[in-house]
Amino acid sequence: MRVLVTGAAGMIGRKLVARLVGDGTVAGRKITALDLHDVVAPSKPEAEFPCETFAGDLSDPEQIATLIGRSPDVVFHLAGIVSGEAEADFDRGYRVNLDGTRALFDAIRLSGICPRVVFSSSIAVFGGPFPDVIPDDFHTVPLSSYGTQKLMGEALLTDYSRRGFMDGVGIRLPTICVRPGKPNKAASSFFSGIIREPLDGKEALLPVPRSVVHTHASPRSAVNFLIHAAGLPSEAIGQRRCLNMPGVAVTVGEQIEALARVGGKDVAALVRDEPDEAVWALVKNWPTRFEAKRARDLGFEAETSFDEIVRIHIEEELGGKA
Amino acid sequence: MRVLVTGAAGMIGRKLVARLVGDGTVAGRKITALDLHDVVAPSKPEAEFPCETFAGDLSDPEQIATLIGRSPDVVFHLAGIVSGEAEADFDRGYRVNLDGTRALFDAIRLSGICPRVVFSSSIAVFGGPFPDVIPDDFHTVPLSSYGTQKLMGEALLTDYSRRGFMDGVGIRLPTICVRPGKPNKAASSFFSGIIREPLDGKEALLPVPRSVVHTHASPRSAVNFLIHAAGLPSEAIGQRRCLNMPGVAVTVGEQIEALARVGGKDVAALVRDEPDEAVWALVKNWPTRFEAKRARDLGFEAETSFDEIVRIHIEEELGGKA
Repeated sequence: MRVLVTGAAGMIGRKLVARLVGDGTVAGRKITALDLHDVVAPSKPEAEFPCETFAGDLSDPEQIATLIGRSPDVVFHLAGIVSGEAEADFDRGYRVNLDGTRALFDAIRLSGICPRVVFSSSIAVFGGPFPDVIPDDFHTVPLSSYGTQKLMGEALLTDYSRRGFMDGVGIRLPTICVRPGKPNKAASSFFSGIIREPLDGKEALLPVPRSVVHTHASPRSAVNFLIHAAGLPSEAIGQRRCLNMPGVAVTVGEQIEALARVGGKDVAALVRDEPDEAVWALVKNWPTRFEAKRARDLGFEAETSFDEIVRIHIEEELGGKA
Repeated sequence: MRVLVTGAAGMIGRKLVARLVGDGTVAGRKITALDLHDVVAPSKPEAEFPCETFAGDLSDPEQIATLIGRSPDVVFHLAGIVSGEAEADFDRGYRVNLDGTRALFDAIRLSGICPRVVFSSSIAVFGGPFPDVIPDDFHTVPLSSYGTQKLMGEALLTDYSRRGFMDGVGIRLPTICVRPGKPNKAASSFFSGIIREPLDGKEALLPVPRSVVHTHASPRSAVNFLIHAAGLPSEAIGQRRCLNMPGVAVTVGEQIEALARVGGKDVAALVRDEPDEAVWALVKNWPTRFEAKRARDLGFEAETSFDEIVRIHIEEELGGKA
């Protein structure tokens, strides 16, 4: 199996690559080669099979021709710019997230190789108002350019799969928590910040009420979703190739209670409520709970409690010590 | 009001133009100029205001720059190739239906004119399996390249409207019945054929069981939808800018009973059942009934019986004589 990962230098990309190198297999078969692409060259892992790294713009036809010319059997398409940037820079968002994805899919179509393509989509394809629990067949009306670009990528993936040009699966990721690294300006940043910062001995500001409900999955689960998607039989997926992933739906208050249980009360006390109307205005339009029945039936699994999500962060990012 | 119609030489386009010329107003204001575009030059109507016709490829940037440079206040975007052709010619389908639409929308965005854009979409954005009645918030997973291209056009229209580049409304048309003209190779052709051909004294073949349920609206209703959409206040539409249009949901048997009532039993006897497994295989995956609650609440109206649809065909195409 030759595997291609786009967006390989990103947070999920790096964790996926580490997992692929560790497993040595994907979709039940041995990995024989791994090609890693990103705007900046991804670091080259130590592996038992050849790894190549590539840097460049994914909407550049030559770059894509090179990658697809190597005939990957599995493509993890994670590349893209994030929602805040896609909203701030309209042209760049459409060029990278839509044109880049379309160029990649067209190169696959014209190559005739028909690989399994796992596309990391997002719950940003949904826009409110929402029912309490979002069913699998809820309509996709995004309220961001990022969500629009992901939706259009999904539509291409579904049509290109139906026509036999590729064997695609779209994975709509919930909010990934706990994100390692520094706080950023994304409105969703606090969902990770209120866990990560206190565990690092720092105060974290909470801009929304503790009653806010949101669905989370750990970075480890995100990687599990991608790996599981790579191995799903095409017939099991059927024509509806984009799936809402499961996650843990909790209130922010329950997140903090989990932090207290796992990390201690002193740690949880480092979360300070500081209401921010602007953040709250955005967050209250976000989806809360997903049914994710199809994904669960197809064997996708997330954490079953937020405690587990906190523990995974401690294991993966803090050497096991809270 | 300067009005632009793309696809103005098509069946709906011609009827829309006749209506605009007859009314002399749109969205409650006087029409001051009408620009008509299609691949072949639309015929130039006699009107009380200046009309210009344009012929060319809508994905040609110069063509679009000319049309949008004239600063239309209302754009009816009907241009596109039909589902059968989009399925048969993959490249042409994406070039005309997706790239053409995107080029038009981008020209509008860059011009800064922010017109009302009425986009003729289709129930082909939906793919089965379906519930008995399709709710307004049912997910859009097309089973054709045409439906995919319409869905992507809708996504652009929604995002471009949210960002203030245009003031768009997407109109998902049900099957238009009775289509004038000759039978064609579209799988849906018989829905019109079983009414039109017998009224013309000719036998019509029915390839599916009489129990098949389908939703119809007359060409006159389609024009009404477009005109009504042009005048809707933007606030009334909100963020969800694409609407399932209402229609008459009937069985094929009920269509034929209506034909007997309006045209006579001898006419209805010209329908001959000749099952065609290939057509049936397609048709049984098509949507049957739509809730269309939002559209009805917003004042969109279709016929209330299939008898009325038959009578409209007789009035408009047969000079009132069955």
